[in-house]
Amino acid sequence: MSVLQNRQTERALDALTIRRQCRIGQLDTGTSGLALGCVQANLVVLPSAIADDFLRFCVRNPKPCPLVGVSEKGIPNIPSLGDDLDLRTDLPRYRIWEKGKLIDEPTDVSAYWTNDLVAFAIGCSFSFEELLIADGIPLRHIETDRNVAMYRTNIQCAPAGPFQGPLVVSMRPFKPLHAIRAIQITSRLPAAHGAPIHLGDPAQIGIPDVANPDYGDATSIMRDEIPVFWACGVTPQAAIAAVKLDFAITHAPGAMLVTDRRNVEFSVL
Amino acid sequence: MSVLQNRQTERALDALTIRRQCRIGQLDTGTSGLALGCVQANLVVLPSAIADDFLRFCVRNPKPCPLVGVSEKGIPNIPSLGDDLDLRTDLPRYRIWEKGKLIDEPTDVSAYWTNDLVAFAIGCSFSFEELLIADGIPLRHIETDRNVAMYRTNIQCAPAGPFQGPLVVSMRPFKPLHAIRAIQITSRLPAAHGAPIHLGDPAQIGIPDVANPDYGDATSIMRDEIPVFWACGVTPQAAIAAVKLDFAITHAPGAMLVTDRRNVEFSVL
Repeated sequence: MSVLQNRQTERALDALTIRRQCRIGQLDTGTSGLALGCVQANLVVLPSAIADDFLRFCVRNPKPCPLVGVSEKGIPNIPSLGDDLDLRTDLPRYRIWEKGKLIDEPTDVSAYWTNDLVAFAIGCSFSFEELLIADGIPLRHIETDRNVAMYRTNIQCAPAGPFQGPLVVSMRPFKPLHAIRAIQITSRLPAAHGAPIHLGDPAQIGIPDVANPDYGDATSIMRDEIPVFWACGVTPQAAIAAVKLDFAITHAPGAMLVTDRRNVEFSVL
Repeated sequence: MSVLQNRQTERALDALTIRRQCRIGQLDTGTSGLALGCVQANLVVLPSAIADDFLRFCVRNPKPCPLVGVSEKGIPNIPSLGDDLDLRTDLPRYRIWEKGKLIDEPTDVSAYWTNDLVAFAIGCSFSFEELLIADGIPLRHIETDRNVAMYRTNIQCAPAGPFQGPLVVSMRPFKPLHAIRAIQITSRLPAAHGAPIHLGDPAQIGIPDVANPDYGDATSIMRDEIPVFWACGVTPQAAIAAVKLDFAITHAPGAMLVTDRRNVEFSVL
């Protein structure tokens, strides 16, 4: 099979099959476009001593940190997201942080897991991007096979314990009619960052140069397009990195937790 | 009572009271802000020979021409919009057109009514403006006591019989967060023009100079604002005027039909 055929097969796989492939080391790619219709989530795993602060940080900042699940202490599963789900093995790739430094990017974190860890699953823009594409709205970063462009803004998150910092946003350029439609569609998905938080002039939210994103890849904006900005799951990652925690586990960029829950289950309207 | 007190009293009046005041010649003002919560409508009254064409024009162009009611031939009432409702007397002021020329602006059209006429009630932006204000979104044309700015666009309506012509839009400037919220709110009201049809660069829809509206009053756009454009009920009026019909009746600008129906009854979501 060609790479493309392989990819098309993977798209049709259900969430459990994706997780099982990760578990046995057979899937080590980004999860964008896989298990269409299923909620994908950012993973954050923290020592229990700091977990309550992070939970409050998420609750206070629901647009960048829409919680779709939280584990019991030490339990490497969030049952509401899938019966057969092991958070230690079922993502394609992880990042291990010590004192705020990236020390490892394994495909399995069993060796790092302890009974003291608490896991958080945070909704992800893949959910709304899937709906935009299904609606016929083109997404340039996907068409050009880049990461979405992301920026730190001058909007501060509501702090909780040591967690604080700027709201990070992702930007997608649209023709005006598509921007209006994208606002309608993403408004239905508060669990995937919801409606945009800004459109138009990037400087109004403290982005000095839209051609130089702080994360991801630059995306061109055509003359007939308007940039639209959504709260982004990098926000909590940046807040965690700034605290230089003794220990943390996150997903590797783009390698999300694929859950059994359907996007429609989290949709309003 | 002061004029302001009078106005506050009028706002609290129900739709039937408004119509009865019009009927006996005691109300001769615009209806913006009156009978809050009630659907207000553009009125178009045409000879029956041309009415079917106009009906198809409305159906084919639902964003500028959202029909909320149509009468039986010769009957000066649309029962679904109010039990005690006489289309000949219950609007504050009318316009009478002959061969496309404005020949009269009476407060009562009984002398012009015939058994051959068909009346159309078309939803109006007053419905969504009321919801925007209730949501705390400022509307500059209301705050400055002007008419909304309206423009002919380069978007052509779908024709029906002799009716054709450009889509006319109204423009309201908003800060980006308010623009996003206004899109959400107006999406709920397809019977009042629904979601915007454009935002941002006016030239993209054929508006060469946003400071020079084709109808209404110019509205300033601040540096931190973005213009948002909605399909407008002047569209069918302009299409009718272009045909130079032998005879037509419309409401006078801003002097709408106040119906018993609630905006919420026509809302989606």
